[in-house]
Amino acid sequence: MSTERVLAYAREKRGEFLSRLQEFIRFPTVSAQPQHAPNLKRCAHWLAKRLRHIGLERVSVIPTQRHPLVYAEWLRAPRRPTLLIYGHYDVQPADPLAEWQSPPFTPTVRGENLYGRGACDDKGQLLTHVSALESYLATAGRLPINVKCVFEGEEEIGSIHLFPFIAKHKGLLAADAAVMSDTRMLGPDRPAISYAERGALYLELTVQGPEHDLHSGSFGGAVHNPLQALCEIIAQLHDRQRRIAIPGFYDRVRELGEQERDSMSRAGPSDAEILADSHSERSWGERAYSLYERTTARPALTVNGLTGGYQGPGGKGIVPARAVAKLSFRLVPNQDPGEVDLLFRQHIARITPATVRTSIRTLSRAAPATVDPTHPAMRAAALAYAQGFGEKPAFLRSGGTIPILPAFQQYLGIPTVLMGFALPDDRMHAPNEKFHIPNFFKGIDTSIWFLDSLAGLHGMQPRRSNASLSVRGSRPSSPAWD
Amino acid sequence: MSTERVLAYAREKRGEFLSRLQEFIRFPTVSAQPQHAPNLKRCAHWLAKRLRHIGLERVSVIPTQRHPLVYAEWLRAPRRPTLLIYGHYDVQPADPLAEWQSPPFTPTVRGENLYGRGACDDKGQLLTHVSALESYLATAGRLPINVKCVFEGEEEIGSIHLFPFIAKHKGLLAADAAVMSDTRMLGPDRPAISYAERGALYLELTVQGPEHDLHSGSFGGAVHNPLQALCEIIAQLHDRQRRIAIPGFYDRVRELGEQERDSMSRAGPSDAEILADSHSERSWGERAYSLYERTTARPALTVNGLTGGYQGPGGKGIVPARAVAKLSFRLVPNQDPGEVDLLFRQHIARITPATVRTSIRTLSRAAPATVDPTHPAMRAAALAYAQGFGEKPAFLRSGGTIPILPAFQQYLGIPTVLMGFALPDDRMHAPNEKFHIPNFFKGIDTSIWFLDSLAGLHGMQPRRSNASLSVRGSRPSSPAWD
Repeated sequence: MSTERVLAYAREKRGEFLSRLQEFIRFPTVSAQPQHAPNLKRCAHWLAKRLRHIGLERVSVIPTQRHPLVYAEWLRAPRRPTLLIYGHYDVQPADPLAEWQSPPFTPTVRGENLYGRGACDDKGQLLTHVSALESYLATAGRLPINVKCVFEGEEEIGSIHLFPFIAKHKGLLAADAAVMSDTRMLGPDRPAISYAERGALYLELTVQGPEHDLHSGSFGGAVHNPLQALCEIIAQLHDRQRRIAIPGFYDRVRELGEQERDSMSRAGPSDAEILADSHSERSWGERAYSLYERTTARPALTVNGLTGGYQGPGGKGIVPARAVAKLSFRLVPNQDPGEVDLLFRQHIARITPATVRTSIRTLSRAAPATVDPTHPAMRAAALAYAQGFGEKPAFLRSGGTIPILPAFQQYLGIPTVLMGFALPDDRMHAPNEKFHIPNFFKGIDTSIWFLDSLAGLHGMQPRRSNASLSVRGSRPSSPAWD
Repeated sequence: MSTERVLAYAREKRGEFLSRLQEFIRFPTVSAQPQHAPNLKRCAHWLAKRLRHIGLERVSVIPTQRHPLVYAEWLRAPRRPTLLIYGHYDVQPADPLAEWQSPPFTPTVRGENLYGRGACDDKGQLLTHVSALESYLATAGRLPINVKCVFEGEEEIGSIHLFPFIAKHKGLLAADAAVMSDTRMLGPDRPAISYAERGALYLELTVQGPEHDLHSGSFGGAVHNPLQALCEIIAQLHDRQRRIAIPGFYDRVRELGEQERDSMSRAGPSDAEILADSHSERSWGERAYSLYERTTARPALTVNGLTGGYQGPGGKGIVPARAVAKLSFRLVPNQDPGEVDLLFRQHIARITPATVRTSIRTLSRAAPATVDPTHPAMRAAALAYAQGFGEKPAFLRSGGTIPILPAFQQYLGIPTVLMGFALPDDRMHAPNEKFHIPNFFKGIDTSIWFLDSLAGLHGMQPRRSNASLSVRGSRPSSPAWD
């Protein structure tokens, strides 16, 4: 069987694949830092060269106003499905540098892990698919399905130019399903596929009091302190039942069915596990729901930051002129970020006292998204994991937000398989990021099996027509999220 | 009459006095900035030399662990009262430098004003008294009363070493009254003497949630956000009547009598004036009181600063680990900062939800203080202003806090006359600080008349024994206040 030959090639080349990942990590592709722009460009060309070298076609480095996209395809399998492989070659900033045990852009093997910024997010995970394609093309001379690759250099800064690119090039990117490996498993040999991501709405709320800071001796007690007013407003955003107290907010929230609640309670983490992960002493939130439900299937409103007045050491006797809160909602089907934005603005206008003024800026929006676990591509992924890791994946909801999901759904009409190979302790975004080397190799095998499984499936239509992605309307905008 | 000769001398020497003030301002005596320590030392010695030169005795530069005190005396008027003259030669930091029209430590005359850091706070105001003493000693060869001077270099950093010095040297500083010129008049030729300063209690409240910042996608909705919890706590610190909602807080607040309310409403600023000064659109606070009463005779609780979570541009999806608020109370007779501190801590403990932890640090405390307006030194000051400015001063309450007042009262048992010569637009603590030159000269005349008036008074006992300072107990600690 040809798949065995492909796998044998992949095993034989493991050393080379690892060296290639190390080469990949050496590019300091920090998309947020303008001084690294040339490194991103060099890295995009390096990646394009790799893709060309392994036999992909129409390989292009596509400039954007900031960091280029890399596109490649192999479309010589008529009547077979087309898979769109998405990944990103940019990385998070490396600081705090002092906390790294080895330099972030000097990939270093310690034990079973390869350390370096981008090792798992997303260079290592991206290369699992590239290595799988290479293994196929080098042994069989062809791929079992059609493949398109789109790799961006702006994921960590909100995929600013990818979204309009997708909207504009629907034909170029047309596919039956997408795959993206940029998420985590539950643990070693405990694969998981997320079939639901929450949406997000990020806002900045400013409360303006006096024109400028006042002496708190001269004016304390006579004007409404904007910091106090901000606290009073925020305190009103949840009710005593810890529900979000914005009229209409829950109107479109789809309640979980008993069946899904049952399967979630069986497959998902327990309250105790989530609490332990949170390093908190006590949980909080809507009492009628488990923590797994609260963090994935229920919406949430989080104050992400507060700024106002004097923040230095010691004291300063002022009534500050203004206070700012960063607030974000996590949204669930069938909530619409645009509609929640409006509800929030109306509510704030209603509860703002006459003694201060409020203003609101919308920083980003992303729709919630779900992928039908029975979609053929999801079933193929499950089979692939079972082969690659010897374990069937758990199908889980995730509480995070992956704006590319609703974007692929909205513009291309396809589901995205979130085929993550990172481990919970891989420290994505943190110092000493690493990739578990055995997972890298199992990821390559899994990707090979995935291509194989997709080839064996009859068409790519979901079994239930009412499933697929539940995206509703609003276009994602600069979603610096996960 | 001898006073006329003294005044004539002072008028003749105006040019010289102004040059001396310019010389004084050239020392960049920023007490908060360690690199300026040598400048403070040089300035203290310059000042001591001046005091010696004009004929004061026992002139000493007294080292402290940081910036030295300057002491001088003239005690050759037996059976006459003794006045303790307090001032400070240190200044606020000069930044933001870019906003100065002329360099802060290059004193510059523009129009009727002398610009420079410290011009009015407090070098110019301090020199009014030194110039008055010089005028007396140069013409009469003596002073009409006994005088002790204590000038410190740490007022802007909380008089850290002055307070223990006072406590330790009660005999050295023993006097019948103190005078301090470091406050403002109501306007040109509208002198005012504050007979009440509010006390203060500065606190830092920390709300701790999870051990470290969490991903708001993974945990939003399952743990109590400490920023939200902080807002909920702060929102509970005032009730719907805008009163401070801490049980027992008002128990010791002395209600204003009808007579004082009447005189306050006649002498003090109107609601409209205070509102205009505040650059706010609407007032706020306890409805039963005028704004003048709210800001001077009623206690207040102000949130001075809020810090927590992400404060940079854009958004970051975190549940922050902790949030911090800087809070300060302004207190009125007969409140005790120590007792309020305790009430606050008990209340916070009571209202802290089980889902977070709170901790409180006390940054500073200062007792409220009042001076009986009918005290002989206050009457002497009123007479002096009437001569120096051609206007009797208004006796007003102030909302600020001057910790030296309760300190002099507690340790020396004497009232302090707040004989301010600064104008409301003199920009104390701000860029382009200035001193109105005519006020400098009128201040010198007023100080001369003050010495004269004190000499003419029979003894220094207050007319009513129940008046004097209403200081209650607690020792002022690092009061970076005004």
